[in-house]
Amino acid sequence: MNTAQAQLGAVLAAGGPELSRLLKRTEGRLAEVAEGHGAELGGHATGTLAAGGKRLRPLLVFLCAASGGDGRLVAAATAVELLHMATLVHDDVLDRSELRRGRPTVFAQGGRLAATATGDLLFSRAFAELVSTNSEEAVRVLSAASSALARGELMQRADAWRGDVTPERYLERCRHKTASLFEASCRLGALFGGEADLSDPLGNFGDRVGLAFQMLDDVLDVSGPTERTGKPRGADLLDGTVTLPLILARGRDPGLRELDLRGTVTDPARAAAVCDRIALTGALDEARRQALTHVADAKTSLVALDLSEDRRRALDLVADGVVERYA
Amino acid sequence: MNTAQAQLGAVLAAGGPELSRLLKRTEGRLAEVAEGHGAELGGHATGTLAAGGKRLRPLLVFLCAASGGDGRLVAAATAVELLHMATLVHDDVLDRSELRRGRPTVFAQGGRLAATATGDLLFSRAFAELVSTNSEEAVRVLSAASSALARGELMQRADAWRGDVTPERYLERCRHKTASLFEASCRLGALFGGEADLSDPLGNFGDRVGLAFQMLDDVLDVSGPTERTGKPRGADLLDGTVTLPLILARGRDPGLRELDLRGTVTDPARAAAVCDRIALTGALDEARRQALTHVADAKTSLVALDLSEDRRRALDLVADGVVERYA
Repeated sequence: MNTAQAQLGAVLAAGGPELSRLLKRTEGRLAEVAEGHGAELGGHATGTLAAGGKRLRPLLVFLCAASGGDGRLVAAATAVELLHMATLVHDDVLDRSELRRGRPTVFAQGGRLAATATGDLLFSRAFAELVSTNSEEAVRVLSAASSALARGELMQRADAWRGDVTPERYLERCRHKTASLFEASCRLGALFGGEADLSDPLGNFGDRVGLAFQMLDDVLDVSGPTERTGKPRGADLLDGTVTLPLILARGRDPGLRELDLRGTVTDPARAAAVCDRIALTGALDEARRQALTHVADAKTSLVALDLSEDRRRALDLVADGVVERYA
Repeated sequence: MNTAQAQLGAVLAAGGPELSRLLKRTEGRLAEVAEGHGAELGGHATGTLAAGGKRLRPLLVFLCAASGGDGRLVAAATAVELLHMATLVHDDVLDRSELRRGRPTVFAQGGRLAATATGDLLFSRAFAELVSTNSEEAVRVLSAASSALARGELMQRADAWRGDVTPERYLERCRHKTASLFEASCRLGALFGGEADLSDPLGNFGDRVGLAFQMLDDVLDVSGPTERTGKPRGADLLDGTVTLPLILARGRDPGLRELDLRGTVTDPARAAAVCDRIALTGALDEARRQALTHVADAKTSLVALDLSEDRRRALDLVADGVVERYA
């Protein structure tokens, strides 16, 4: 059992049998959605959905709900996971990725057209799933997240190769690209758990955790090791994505400041060399430290809320799990 | 003034000043959406939205509403147009199209990544727009259409190059790919026009008109002329899309039945030659005749409904406009 599995085990133990039951129902619902929409989708999406993943977002939905009795929670958990998958499928087209989680991607199996359409279909099904809850507020939360995800991608594109990306701009991008769906998951949990008044504070918790998640992911891209990430170090550098480690390192090393990624960092060996140089500035430690601050803030913010001990502990474990994943 | 403009003029005249006012408000709202979502989207989407188009789907929303007093109609019209645009932006990425309506596409301006994300954002904004109506039924209608559009694309992909596509399968594909959003537009109009009971019959009207729209588009791809379509004849043949003219022609000309598109129809000259051969079988006339039957059925179906004379006439004009466009 690896660390991530151990961590999930601890969360499940803290969440009790009710949590396991809800997660199982979500898996069932995801499979139904994949199988229920025509033979064409069936093939592609079943592979994508079955490939699994951590189901971190559904987990947040359930843990942010005071009680698990409401069937709408499963619909919300299914919806956030479908939306997450839609973005993965589109990302794989854009990155021309052949494998994800050890399985062929929709792009690899069906090509660009099938993968783009599959992503669009998963997007639509996310909304359809949530409509079944009869909650306009829920659809509003999901569409805000969905817009934010797309804006985050656009911001990343607009920032590509640039030398003047500020830490603030980087954080804003992470908020859009990643944290928005973590936040939405928590809000939906609060909403359907009968505590709409906790939507803001729990949403804020999700935002912080999501932010740390993306920041640590970006550190890992520079630090490696490759066996862990399944991709060469500095993949972000190669496609021009300017992340916090590079931004901080540029402030410390004039040589990096003058480096124009485009045209010079064009192969994995060159990218690895730049990664080493970034690491030498201490920027990785600083970026990691900033991410951990967000996790600590997230956990602290829970203390002021009126949550049961079990619930708070489970949420703490998820926050820690994000860090653990990158330890 | 060309025929299409004259036709629109007639529809507007039949619809009265109220219709013009609603269409103007929709344009305003589309511009707000484009400008209101960050500089990144602003640039790309403003171009796409400003490029205009016929606004056929918003028109259907308004004409299917008994009264135009409800602000939710504009939200619905904006939503269907945003969804339509989202699919166009993604189509342009897949087809690597540089121009649409005489303007550079988002793909041409921003590349694959920006265009995919812009499409996703327009998708999201379509749902966000509809959420403002506080109607779950409306979100349900839009998500059904959105899923159908994506399924239609997947079906088209699955059918590519095949020799055994039946007319029934072809019609099912057109229903998904095109007619579903026409149908949704009509349903939303009925819903917000205060006549939810007309949602089925008016939805059926939209379905028929949308079906004819796609069928005539497919005829035009074979018949040309190129000056009219802005693309070489037989573009569908070149990318393996099997449409009704080819299906019917295969039943009449054994040579076409044995023709394997892939590998043989690889350049515009070859495609044009196959188009000529399809035309010789009379398949174009037959396909056109079938499309016109759907338009006639659509118009006939209105007679049984309790619509004002003006409204029925305006809807008739839209149905005729679809034919006119290809006359």
